Amino acid sequence: MNTATLLVSCPDQKGLVAKISDWVFSHGGNILHADQHADSTAGLFLMRVEWDLDNFGLTRTEIAPTFAQLASAIQAKWHIQFSDYVRRIAIFVSKQDHCLYDLILRQRSHELPAIIPVVISNHPDLEQVAHNFGINYHYLPITPENKLEQEKQQLALLKQYQIDLVLLAKYMQVLSPEFLSQFSQVINIHHSFLPAFAGANPYHRAYKRGVKIIGATAHYVTEELDEGPIIEQDVIRVSHRDSVNDLIRKGKDLERIVLARAVRQHLENRVLVYGQSANSGLGIRTVVFD
Amino acid sequence: MNTATLLVSCPDQKGLVAKISDWVFSHGGNILHADQHADSTAGLFLMRVEWDLDNFGLTRTEIAPTFAQLASAIQAKWHIQFSDYVRRIAIFVSKQDHCLYDLILRQRSHELPAIIPVVISNHPDLEQVAHNFGINYHYLPITPENKLEQEKQQLALLKQYQIDLVLLAKYMQVLSPEFLSQFSQVINIHHSFLPAFAGANPYHRAYKRGVKIIGATAHYVTEELDEGPIIEQDVIRVSHRDSVNDLIRKGKDLERIVLARAVRQHLENRVLVYGQSANSGLGIRTVVFD
Amino acid sequence: MNTATLLVSCPDQKGLVAKISDWVFSHGGNILHADQHADSTAGLFLMRVEWDLDNFGLTRTEIAPTFAQLASAIQAKWHIQFSDYVRRIAIFVSKQDHCLYDLILRQRSHELPAIIPVVISNHPDLEQVAHNFGINYHYLPITPENKLEQEKQQLALLKQYQIDLVLLAKYMQVLSPEFLSQFSQVINIHHSFLPAFAGANPYHRAYKRGVKIIGATAHYVTEELDEGPIIEQDVIRVSHRDSVNDLIRKGKDLERIVLARAVRQHLENRVLVYGQSANSGLGIRTVVFD
Amino acid sequence: MNTATLLVSCPDQKGLVAKISDWVFSHGGNILHADQHADSTAGLFLMRVEWDLDNFGLTRTEIAPTFAQLASAIQAKWHIQFSDYVRRIAIFVSKQDHCLYDLILRQRSHELPAIIPVVISNHPDLEQVAHNFGINYHYLPITPENKLEQEKQQLALLKQYQIDLVLLAKYMQVLSPEFLSQFSQVINIHHSFLPAFAGANPYHRAYKRGVKIIGATAHYVTEELDEGPIIEQDVIRVSHRDSVNDLIRKGKDLERIVLARAVRQHLENRVLVYGQSANSGLGIRTVVFD
Repeated sequence: MNTATLLVSCPDQKGLVAKISDWVFSHGGNILHADQHADSTAGLFLMRVEWDLDNFGLTRTEIAPTFAQLASAIQAKWHIQFSDYVRRIAIFVSKQDHCLYDLILRQRSHELPAIIPVVISNHPDLEQVAHNFGINYHYLPITPENKLEQEKQQLALLKQYQIDLVLLAKYMQVLSPEFLSQFSQVINIHHSFLPAFAGANPYHRAYKRGVKIIGATAHYVTEELDEGPIIEQDVIRVSHRDSVNDLIRKGKDLERIVLARAVRQHLENRVLVYGQSANSGLGIRTVVFD
Repeated sequence: MNTATLLVSCPDQKGLVAKISDWVFSHGGNILHADQHADSTAGLFLMRVEWDLDNFGLTRTEIAPTFAQLASAIQAKWHIQFSDYVRRIAIFVSKQDHCLYDLILRQRSHELPAIIPVVISNHPDLEQVAHNFGINYHYLPITPENKLEQEKQQLALLKQYQIDLVLLAKYMQVLSPEFLSQFSQVINIHHSFLPAFAGANPYHRAYKRGVKIIGATAHYVTEELDEGPIIEQDVIRVSHRDSVNDLIRKGKDLERIVLARAVRQHLENRVLVYGQSANSGLGIRTVVFD
Repeated sequence: MNTATLLVSCPDQKGLVAKISDWVFSHGGNILHADQHADSTAGLFLMRVEWDLDNFGLTRTEIAPTFAQLASAIQAKWHIQFSDYVRRIAIFVSKQDHCLYDLILRQRSHELPAIIPVVISNHPDLEQVAHNFGINYHYLPITPENKLEQEKQQLALLKQYQIDLVLLAKYMQVLSPEFLSQFSQVINIHHSFLPAFAGANPYHRAYKRGVKIIGATAHYVTEELDEGPIIEQDVIRVSHRDSVNDLIRKGKDLERIVLARAVRQHLENRVLVYGQSANSGLGIRTVVFD
Repeated sequence: MNTATLLVSCPDQKGLVAKISDWVFSHGGNILHADQHADSTAGLFLMRVEWDLDNFGLTRTEIAPTFAQLASAIQAKWHIQFSDYVRRIAIFVSKQDHCLYDLILRQRSHELPAIIPVVISNHPDLEQVAHNFGINYHYLPITPENKLEQEKQQLALLKQYQIDLVLLAKYMQVLSPEFLSQFSQVINIHHSFLPAFAGANPYHRAYKRGVKIIGATAHYVTEELDEGPIIEQDVIRVSHRDSVNDLIRKGKDLERIVLARAVRQHLENRVLVYGQSANSGLGIRTVVFD
């Protein structure tokens, strides 16, 4: 079954559920899933609607322009995705392979509805892993001097491979604002702690502090480092019996699972980002229509 | 703000979201929350809609008969509840006080939007607890011989106190089919284990088996003991360091929290039960629109 | 059965388990539990030993001076506690009652082996709760001007009631360094988030950030606010469906449970604090011998 | 650093910690970790001791016969393992690859201190996976008629590859009592539910029952199917939004992680099995000295 999924946000007002579901129904669509949320603080209405395209009265090229009329009337930001459009993913890595393997194997076992044509790295180490699965590997070493130049190469590769989504799978480099201004669909995974330990060697510092729980957070990448909208988080208990290496090992399991869940939610068009920059009063956050 | 909440289930077909949300909108209602689910195995559509009653075009007495026309057309089972109708709860207890205290304190701190006018028990032990909070206490001892008779007394009390919901808060008696046929809104809490240990002394047997996780399950009570539709579950890790008494203590924390969550979901009209008896092929289960 | 529990830390060296367990055995003690940990970063050996006092060859008054000889030889910091010595707890509260009720009820149900003779508060609100359970209540309002003076009153009350342990059960005041220099056995509970939100209105800010998990941390109080050694932590998942009030409600459940677990660990002499101040390189942390 | 680890169980009596730690110390051993547990129901004392072999006064061949004298005096069952003895693992699989990949990748990243020389399967499907990592693959199809014969082949392969441990990584066959009588070090992973669903299609039946939590259990294999001593368990929340396929997918993540944790605990000599058969009064259970 082929479906269309609409993600829409607009100022809250009466009748939005009815208007949007009516629009689908009036064109002969059968709604399979509908979920909505009202953020009263932000005064926003947010909705996800997925409907069967069989016997739908509009062709694919007609859908967007037709909905645009309703969207304009309700001042909506919106996005429509078709289930048979298979997203193309580039995975950025450095030296650690645990997230890379995990993503490839989940894609191979059909848990992630996507294609992974390319892995890009600032180190040569993981070329063989990519090649074992028939995936191209581009090694682009990064220094402070060549960073902007290499990012241009990366952007060119994203264009060449027609990439829809970049996953930072333990890529130990910060993407520049210039990169993000040209390609913004990027998901990152990083460790999280209670309390937070920003900066270098977080597992060592969490160990010293004697934390009893460690976590991982998957988020969209924005210019504000590690402050992008959160898609998914999870935690695991630790104790004094865990050495720093045990924390790192347990953290790797979390990173794998949290990143995979976030990617899957993204690919199923379940994540709606809204709000302004984290520096503003409102904050930028997600609704995950799970 | 006063709201109405509609819980509806019917055979799945095209346009149900649109029809139902249109019905609300066409009478001037503003939908605050709408959530729906399609159970493809059962061929059923299930929906929860909550709307603002301010300026709604129908009076409360008109709402049900008016919706009944649409419901009939789509062959729906349905239920409408108003947010300012405060449910009246009877708590059934035996000797253990942890769930009783927890429910009363949550009610007092406005976590549970309800009134608790009466506690009914087959033991006299917890009378003082009820009285400390100004709640009436009825002591109805149960023996195999007097059980049906005492259940008639219980049912009379439910009528007298105009009870909407009974909570079995560690009430160590099984309600008879006769009782349930006359009063069916009953929620129970019981322990759960991996694997299951049915029958007597489950914590002792779980200890002997060396389980690493214990759990608790809140469910509606049906004639099939401990097989009623599940509302909420949770678990906690245990180890060989935990004695049987530690398992019981940790289990009490779980029971408290799981029961309270289930009651809250019920009171907020988030729980929709559907399907046939557990003995049938389909099973009887819940959707919890959280 | 009466037992003695020894908590000991000293520079790591060969033969410490043997030396310490031999000391118990040579005086006729039967070791019921022994657990030890080596912190290789700190170069420290940490051990908890609990033994049966029946037929032990030393009287209670002889035990400490006799062990002191061994302790001196191994340069140990140590503490011995007898199981039949019942600790006396003062609970400090402000206006919120959820942790207060929880602690009292657990004490009443024998989950916390202690006596609670007094509740001290900077507000009059919870006097009735204390009185319902026959506990004295002292109302000592705090202003910036009278704070040091009122803390002297608090310390006098701790002396008068022979208090061993103070629990800050949502006490919304910071204890001064002067207070802590005179009474240092204080456990606090506070919220925790991924990432951290220090300062005012943390739940509101966590909501704005769209966190998917909230937590609570119980710790010993030190002069460095909310930076004392962690005893226990736990978390719960939240989603966009949770309002700020839902976060606060779920946080209250966490606070209750995490504080109660920490207090129990402390009362069972399972928590050993070691290391230097959080400002030093090493950090100050706990081993919880669970 | 090379270490020896002793796992010992014996009838409880005075002085066992002292006697055993003295034995290590008197031969010049430095105890790195010691943990013990008393099961008062079973009347048993259980202990794990790990010590540094550098400068230990006994050679490796002397250690066992020397300890045997103490063991005999205290009627102990015991086992000593050296940290530099690398266990050899055979992985049994059918068609599913998720646990196989996970185990191999963890072994490659040094999370599992072992060698995996061979994969044995009743299906040919996963040969390429094994070969990609340079691991031999033996395809031994099983029918009711040839099962005992093929098990002899399996046992011959275990001998040929000098296997210490067999992992059933979603091997969809039951090992016969004859197999287990000749090779008993076998760990299995299977799903767990609250309540339990024994037999075929458990995920389908859990879905029908509307469970809110699913789990996985890793255990040693005994003749009593899925009743062997539990090493590790974990769970994950599910909801009505999860289809049967979602349950299966989430279950796969659990199976991976729970099996890997159990294997790691086993390889680090942390798991002590004791008690009699599950059919006896006592039950057969594990202590996991984590």
